[in-house]
Amino acid sequence: MFIPKIYKSEDQELMKKIISENAFALLISDKQRLSATHSMFLLNEKEDNFYVETHISKANFQAKVLKDGDEVLCDFLGAHSYISSSWYEKTNVSTWNYEAVQIRGKVKLMTDEELYQHLTKLTFKFEKIQKCPMFVETIGEEMVRKEMKGAFGINIYPTEIFIANKLSQNRNEFDFENIILNLGQSDSANEKKIAELMKKNRSLI
Amino acid sequence: MFIPKIYKSEDQELMKKIISENAFALLISDKQRLSATHSMFLLNEKEDNFYVETHISKANFQAKVLKDGDEVLCDFLGAHSYISSSWYEKTNVSTWNYEAVQIRGKVKLMTDEELYQHLTKLTFKFEKIQKCPMFVETIGEEMVRKEMKGAFGINIYPTEIFIANKLSQNRNEFDFENIILNLGQSDSANEKKIAELMKKNRSLI
Repeated sequence: MFIPKIYKSEDQELMKKIISENAFALLISDKQRLSATHSMFLLNEKEDNFYVETHISKANFQAKVLKDGDEVLCDFLGAHSYISSSWYEKTNVSTWNYEAVQIRGKVKLMTDEELYQHLTKLTFKFEKIQKCPMFVETIGEEMVRKEMKGAFGINIYPTEIFIANKLSQNRNEFDFENIILNLGQSDSANEKKIAELMKKNRSLI
Repeated sequence: MFIPKIYKSEDQELMKKIISENAFALLISDKQRLSATHSMFLLNEKEDNFYVETHISKANFQAKVLKDGDEVLCDFLGAHSYISSSWYEKTNVSTWNYEAVQIRGKVKLMTDEELYQHLTKLTFKFEKIQKCPMFVETIGEEMVRKEMKGAFGINIYPTEIFIANKLSQNRNEFDFENIILNLGQSDSANEKKIAELMKKNRSLI
């Protein structure tokens, strides 16, 4: 992932936040042929390290070819918004602000037990906020193990991490304030979020 | 892209809509190494056919290696939302609804004139809704041509098109209505959009 230095972050907490908030992400591989699947991811922290987990259908081409040690790329796109150069003081070209994480890593196929734990954690993450949560324990082990037969679970051990935090860091004070003002007036959740991230990012500098 | 038959669409108008509404998409390649870049796309219709256009920074690894005829994959993710199985009549596992398009295609590098036209159209698309639009004509040819020196433009001619329209088509009437009800009560634009798409999609069946 190409990230100009000014937009590149090394902030592991930001990385975890982007992955956690954008769990429906993209699993990309090029074993035999270029393929990409939208799937649900979890970040698994182990002492000072971490890996990501996901599962796809066994009927998916990627499930048929991916083996231990194969390289994949996982793409997590967070908030993003068009930035109009009409908001700038001086004439210039428009751009797009965004936050994103890419994890390049090596595949390790899950064991049945790991897949069961993965589904338990994933379900907990999204069900705990429901009115009548349907946890794995609620669904029952029998049904979950039956559904698991169609699922292909993998852990991805990072070899390279990219954290993009493109938030108009290259603009002067006038432009920066005017971008926030314009995005803040939008009805779009993405645009409002980028305005918030810009404010927060500046306060950290 | 693996799409179970029940969620697979052949609707070219839907494809164009998803691409147009989700123009900030992902350019994926595996020339020399697996790489992916978030960039702005345009769909270009030519008589009964079409191709997609995008541009990235010349400093990007993909710009250094991609040549005419290379294969790339373009991923456009539209609205998406977690679907809790707690909204179902009978016990089952949860899932994710979404609409997405993937275009597998062959690269053709843009000429300078094509890149100029691409930037003109792209800027028009996003500037026409601004209060004081900053079109390419407003910015001026000199500045646009100067900025273009850092840009790498490509056209992508489709060899394979995937249109995913996963909208709970496998659920019974009770579940379907209850999913729409629950998503409709959410504050999330994505969830509201999936509820709308579900209603619209059912009315077409």
